[in-house]
Amino acid sequence: MNTSMEQLSAFQRKEMERQYALYANGVNEIIPALELKQKIAKSLLKKKPLKVKLGLDPSAPDVHIGHTVVLQKLKQFQQNGHIIQLIVGDFTGKIGDPTGKSAARKQLTDEEVKHNAQTYVEQFGKVLDMKKVELHYNSQWLRLLNFEDVIRLAGSITVARLLERNDFSQRITTGKPISLHEFFYPLMQGYDSVVLESDIELGGTDQHFNVLMGRQLQEHYQKEKQAVILLPLLEGLDGVDKMSKSKGNYIGIHDKPNDMFGKTMSIPDEVIPKYIDLATDFDLEKKKLLKEDLKSGRLHPRDAKIMIGENFVTMFHGRKASESAVHHFQQVFQNRKLPEDIPTMVWQKAPKIPIVDLIVELELLPSKSEARKMIQNGGIKLNGEKVVNKSLEIEIKNDTIIQVGKRKFLKITL
Amino acid sequence: MNTSMEQLSAFQRKEMERQYALYANGVNEIIPALELKQKIAKSLLKKKPLKVKLGLDPSAPDVHIGHTVVLQKLKQFQQNGHIIQLIVGDFTGKIGDPTGKSAARKQLTDEEVKHNAQTYVEQFGKVLDMKKVELHYNSQWLRLLNFEDVIRLAGSITVARLLERNDFSQRITTGKPISLHEFFYPLMQGYDSVVLESDIELGGTDQHFNVLMGRQLQEHYQKEKQAVILLPLLEGLDGVDKMSKSKGNYIGIHDKPNDMFGKTMSIPDEVIPKYIDLATDFDLEKKKLLKEDLKSGRLHPRDAKIMIGENFVTMFHGRKASESAVHHFQQVFQNRKLPEDIPTMVWQKAPKIPIVDLIVELELLPSKSEARKMIQNGGIKLNGEKVVNKSLEIEIKNDTIIQVGKRKFLKITL
Repeated sequence: MNTSMEQLSAFQRKEMERQYALYANGVNEIIPALELKQKIAKSLLKKKPLKVKLGLDPSAPDVHIGHTVVLQKLKQFQQNGHIIQLIVGDFTGKIGDPTGKSAARKQLTDEEVKHNAQTYVEQFGKVLDMKKVELHYNSQWLRLLNFEDVIRLAGSITVARLLERNDFSQRITTGKPISLHEFFYPLMQGYDSVVLESDIELGGTDQHFNVLMGRQLQEHYQKEKQAVILLPLLEGLDGVDKMSKSKGNYIGIHDKPNDMFGKTMSIPDEVIPKYIDLATDFDLEKKKLLKEDLKSGRLHPRDAKIMIGENFVTMFHGRKASESAVHHFQQVFQNRKLPEDIPTMVWQKAPKIPIVDLIVELELLPSKSEARKMIQNGGIKLNGEKVVNKSLEIEIKNDTIIQVGKRKFLKITL
Repeated sequence: MNTSMEQLSAFQRKEMERQYALYANGVNEIIPALELKQKIAKSLLKKKPLKVKLGLDPSAPDVHIGHTVVLQKLKQFQQNGHIIQLIVGDFTGKIGDPTGKSAARKQLTDEEVKHNAQTYVEQFGKVLDMKKVELHYNSQWLRLLNFEDVIRLAGSITVARLLERNDFSQRITTGKPISLHEFFYPLMQGYDSVVLESDIELGGTDQHFNVLMGRQLQEHYQKEKQAVILLPLLEGLDGVDKMSKSKGNYIGIHDKPNDMFGKTMSIPDEVIPKYIDLATDFDLEKKKLLKEDLKSGRLHPRDAKIMIGENFVTMFHGRKASESAVHHFQQVFQNRKLPEDIPTMVWQKAPKIPIVDLIVELELLPSKSEARKMIQNGGIKLNGEKVVNKSLEIEIKNDTIIQVGKRKFLKITL
């Protein structure tokens, strides 16, 4: 395969490098980078699209912006003519948890699996062209394996290797039981790559072990090994934890336009470049420019966030909804006149402080619990933006304006 | 099931106790003893035979007296009307070793499996009434399991439990790889008990983990749990190591009558009671008497060995061959006159010594390698019995006579 690179024309080589830079942008790791380049080269030479795989949990979640990171990456491949293979892991879903211990793994019926897959198709359709996507159910091939096939599959891996997986090794260390059947989940995911002859598999960094299993199994079954692209996990609105529904720090793709935009405006400045790279569908050039301008100060963080928010709302609700969301935001938040007589106080303590502590320190409210309640009721604003995260930690900058309720304002200087 | 015991008539209770004592004689462990009693009780009450299982490796060995220990135990069950289930583990045999690393697990064809099973039938027929034995091939049910069934099977056990098995834990400790498929061998054996609803499984002490797996799986599949009888491993002619073909310390059931008898005469006195209990088919009463008389000195060890040897030869070659073997032995060994002028020397070193060291110490031969060669050629005798084991360690007793070749004799006194 090494020769692929040498056979490329100058034009093809440039195209290969362009695609590679696009796919590599924003990712956490490519295993191995050279093989990805070779695969792109081969695809150009043979005019054969690459098969890019993503495995899906069959228990259909409400998709949020955190999930779209991998979809944006798939979109880049799709826009360059490659084939997206979405695999619904319905085989595990249909089995459920044979030990009956995991409530999360409840047994799904065929109808539930189909329904869940349909919700994926609908939601993913906002990012990907689903007409061109291959949708597979892995029960199609996994249910055909007999005991002998399973023994051959199991013969491809050692127990020690499986115990290297983070959650397994932690459970062994802490004495928590691992049921033997759990060892098969990564093997199933890997076997999917064998059957579908995937060239590339995408996954979050938390999928490191599972997606590498595909490489190992393809080798065992004497197929060409897939390259693996690991994507970072996107932080939620708090800028700290991974975006997730359970943490409440998410932007759902079903959020109403105004909420989606407002939430986007509340992300901390530090994560703006990551949101640009991972969650928008700006082209690579634009992403670079935005990040540069942001860094140099030519672009105000607020304006960057407006662009990201517009991008999100356009993607999930259309251009018209996006324009109206921007308008609404400016009306309600930006254009709202501040009182002229805001009291000012000088902050002399450490600038990093949880928002609820700050409110109590400034004697704006008598207790942290009241501060939390007020946040929950949407009554706290920071520089005109509603605070939604009760455990938000802020870094106080000069002229920070904090608003409690309708009328209580305070300006902090350093 | 507890009530079974209470429902027994006085006569049935006595019969239950008689059978239990018979089955428990000579064994290493019964897990659990109470359940075995309850099973016998239930069988008497319901007039339903027990199903007694033995798993067989499909790579057909030449059966030796060491293997017959478990057959003798099965024979006791058979003589009391219970059903013997022999399971040829042909499923594993047909798969071989998917990693290709274990030369021992070569893939067998259907013909080889059938042929090997036939040799079992022929050989076991010397001990058991094969017409009444159930012969099963576990590929019959194991090949029908699909991936989902295997997941359910694997869900019955934890990785930690599997790693408790001696050879697995040793390999983890020493960093030697365990391929995942190996975890399934004990599960397959256990699943056989589920399918066959075995009441009892027999195995050597080295099968402790595997036979207990049957209990665990039966419970998982909501069947009545089998009781387990673990039998000691019989020492070979050296009285030290487990009898095995590779060690050369075995009495094969295909050995010619005179060899079989002669080898039996060469076992060390210490293991005579174990041979009586485990390898002969004397009834329980006779076994007890022989052991008592041996202990009290009423029975000379040599005479006990003659009885054991007669029993073996009768079992495997018939009564006539047995009589002729005894006659031959007495002719050649016992009746042979010793020279009157045997030189005597007093032994002052430690009495336990390997035979080859002793020969060199006594300057009967110039080197250990010559001593070994002489043993190989059948030229060394100890108290008139041919030494066959080159690594035999002996305990020198007063008046031990050692003979090298035809004419060299030495008497050792302490």
